[in-house]
Amino acid sequence: MDWFLQQAKVPSDIHRAAATQHQSQLTKPAGSLGQLETLAITLASLQGSHHPQLKNIHIHIFAADHGIAAENVSAFPQAVTAQMVQNFSSGGAAIAVIAQTLNADLAISNVGTVQALPELPKVLDQRIAAGTANFAHGPAMQSAQLLAALEVGRNSVSRQQDLWLGGEMGIANTSSATALACALLQVNAQQLVGPGTGIDAAAQQHKAQVINAALALHKANSNSPLNNLQNLGGLEIAALVGGYIRAAQLGVPALVDGFICTVAAAYAIAINPSVKPWLLLSHQSAEPGQQALFEGFAYPPLINMGMRLGEGSGAAVCLPLLKLACDLHNNMATFADAGVANKD
Amino acid sequence: MDWFLQQAKVPSDIHRAAATQHQSQLTKPAGSLGQLETLAITLASLQGSHHPQLKNIHIHIFAADHGIAAENVSAFPQAVTAQMVQNFSSGGAAIAVIAQTLNADLAISNVGTVQALPELPKVLDQRIAAGTANFAHGPAMQSAQLLAALEVGRNSVSRQQDLWLGGEMGIANTSSATALACALLQVNAQQLVGPGTGIDAAAQQHKAQVINAALALHKANSNSPLNNLQNLGGLEIAALVGGYIRAAQLGVPALVDGFICTVAAAYAIAINPSVKPWLLLSHQSAEPGQQALFEGFAYPPLINMGMRLGEGSGAAVCLPLLKLACDLHNNMATFADAGVANKD
Repeated sequence: MDWFLQQAKVPSDIHRAAATQHQSQLTKPAGSLGQLETLAITLASLQGSHHPQLKNIHIHIFAADHGIAAENVSAFPQAVTAQMVQNFSSGGAAIAVIAQTLNADLAISNVGTVQALPELPKVLDQRIAAGTANFAHGPAMQSAQLLAALEVGRNSVSRQQDLWLGGEMGIANTSSATALACALLQVNAQQLVGPGTGIDAAAQQHKAQVINAALALHKANSNSPLNNLQNLGGLEIAALVGGYIRAAQLGVPALVDGFICTVAAAYAIAINPSVKPWLLLSHQSAEPGQQALFEGFAYPPLINMGMRLGEGSGAAVCLPLLKLACDLHNNMATFADAGVANKD
Repeated sequence: MDWFLQQAKVPSDIHRAAATQHQSQLTKPAGSLGQLETLAITLASLQGSHHPQLKNIHIHIFAADHGIAAENVSAFPQAVTAQMVQNFSSGGAAIAVIAQTLNADLAISNVGTVQALPELPKVLDQRIAAGTANFAHGPAMQSAQLLAALEVGRNSVSRQQDLWLGGEMGIANTSSATALACALLQVNAQQLVGPGTGIDAAAQQHKAQVINAALALHKANSNSPLNNLQNLGGLEIAALVGGYIRAAQLGVPALVDGFICTVAAAYAIAINPSVKPWLLLSHQSAEPGQQALFEGFAYPPLINMGMRLGEGSGAAVCLPLLKLACDLHNNMATFADAGVANKD
C-alpha cells in the first residue's frame, strides 16, 4: 500500500472527555471562552495529553512555479516565486517576521522554482522540476513528480512537533488551486475564482475561462483525487498534501492556512479520509473559493481578518490563539481551588 | 469644565499617510494582510509614530457589585465578584493567565464589592460603595459616586502606556449594561438582553422585564448619558468610561473588550465624542446586545470566537494580533530592499 493511504492515528476520546470535564471546572461561566475551549479540548484529544502544548511549532513553506502562469493569470511575474524564497530566507517576508515574533521554527522547501537558486539559510533545495507543465495543454506533472512532491511534504513532519503548519509560495498557484477545487466540488470556475494576488474583474473572467477549458481537457482522466492532483496541481500543493497526511499519521495536529492550503488539505482528506480530524482550519481567507471547502473539515476556521497572502501567514497569525487556549486550559484555577462559588 | 469633557488628542494624519504608503511598499500583494494592515496604520496614527509598538500594555480590571442582583437576574451568587477579585490577584482567573502568557501588566481596582477585601497583590482598594443601589427602585449611584468612579478609571491610565485595556467583573453587570445600551439606543430590553453568565430563556425574559420596568422608572431623568450612567450604571462601568476618556486625552489607544466594555466605551463617546478614534473594538462577543453598538465606533471588531467571559479577556486575546500587525509593519522588507518584483 502507498504510504499516503495508510490510516491516520486515532484521536484520544479519553483525553477529549477529560479535557471537556476539566473545562467545566475552571473559574468561568461554562462555555464562556467559546472557541478557545473547543481548541483546547481538540488539542488535548489530538496530542493525547491532559496538558496540550504548543512549544515545538514547525512552519514549513513549499515553493514552486506553475506552467499555467504562461496563460497570464497572475498579477505578478513568475520570477517572484524564487525572489520570495530568498525573502523567506533573509527574514523580510511576512511569514518570516511572524515566525521570528512567535519564536517558531521555519523551513522552506524549494520543490520547483523555474530557476535554480544558490544555497540559502533555512532553504532545502528539493527541486523536482523547473515548475509544473502548463495544465492548459496537458498534465501539470508526471506521476513520478507527484510522488516525489508528496514525499517532500512527508519528510517535513516529525513526531516531535506539537503542531505542523504548512505554507506555500508559487506565482499562479491560485489558478491551480481553483482548478483542483472545481474538480473536487464539481463546480464551474466562475463560482470559485478570485483575485489571487490582485487581478481585476476582467482578468478574473479570463482566469475562469482558462481554468474551465483545462477542466474540460482533463475531464476524461478526472476520476480520482490523485489524478486531479497530477493533472491540475502544483508541486508545492502536492507537497502540502503529503505533509497533511503524514502529520495525521504521526499524530501531529496540522494548522491549515488560506485558500491554497485549504485545497491541499481537502485533497489530503479526499485521498485519505482518516486524516480529517487532524487538519484544523485557521483563518477565513478573502479569496472566495476557500469557503466552498469548509464543509469537508471537522471544525470551522477561527478568524476572518480579510487576509489573502498565503505563505502560511494566516495560520501563523492564529498560533497565539492556540497557545492561549492551551495556557488557559492548563493554568486557570478550578472553582474548588480558588474558592469561587459555581453557578449551582 | 469637567475633566471628562476636555477634548481628546487628535490622531496624526501625517503618520497615517506615511504608514499607508509604507504598507504599499512591503513585499506582499497590496491589501493582502487585511485588517493587520489597517491595525498597523491606525496604531501608527494614534501613537504618532512610524514604528507603532505594543511593549507597554496595561490591563486594568474594575470590579464592583450591583444592587440589581437582588432581582435574580444572574446565574451566579453576588459573592462571586469578591471571590473573583482574589482569583485575579492569585493568577487563576482567565485574564490573569492571559496577562502572564503575554507578559502584560495587570492591575485590579476594587471600586465597590459588597464585602471589603483584605490587602491583595495587584489589587487597589478603591471601594466607593458596597455596590450600587438597586436601579429597579432608584438611582444606582449618587452623583458624587459617579464622579469618584470616573476618577478611578482616569487614574489608571498613564502616558507611558502603549495601549490601555480595560476589563470588568461584577455579578449582574450585564443587566446594568443592557439597561444602559437600551437607554442609549432607545430600544426595548427584549431586543438586547442575553444569557450573561448563563441564564436560560425564561430567566432572560424576566431579566428583560426588570430592565424595561427600570427604564420606565428613570425615563423622566434620562436626558443625558451622564444621567443614565448614574441611574443605571455600575461603579466598574463608570470607571471604564473614565479610563476610555482619559486614554484618548493622553493619546493612548484603548482596546475595548466585549458587551459591558463596549457599552462603557459607547458612553465615553456619547459623553465626549472626541474620544471615538482612540477606542478600538477587539472581539465580537456572544452576548447579543454588543453588536447593536458597533455602528458608533470607528472600526469593526477584529475577531469573533464566541467568547462571553468579560474580565477584558476577549480584548487580551487580540493583543498578539496587534503585536503581529506592528511587527509586520516594522520588520517586513520592501520590494526595493528585497529585490522582489512588484505588480507593476
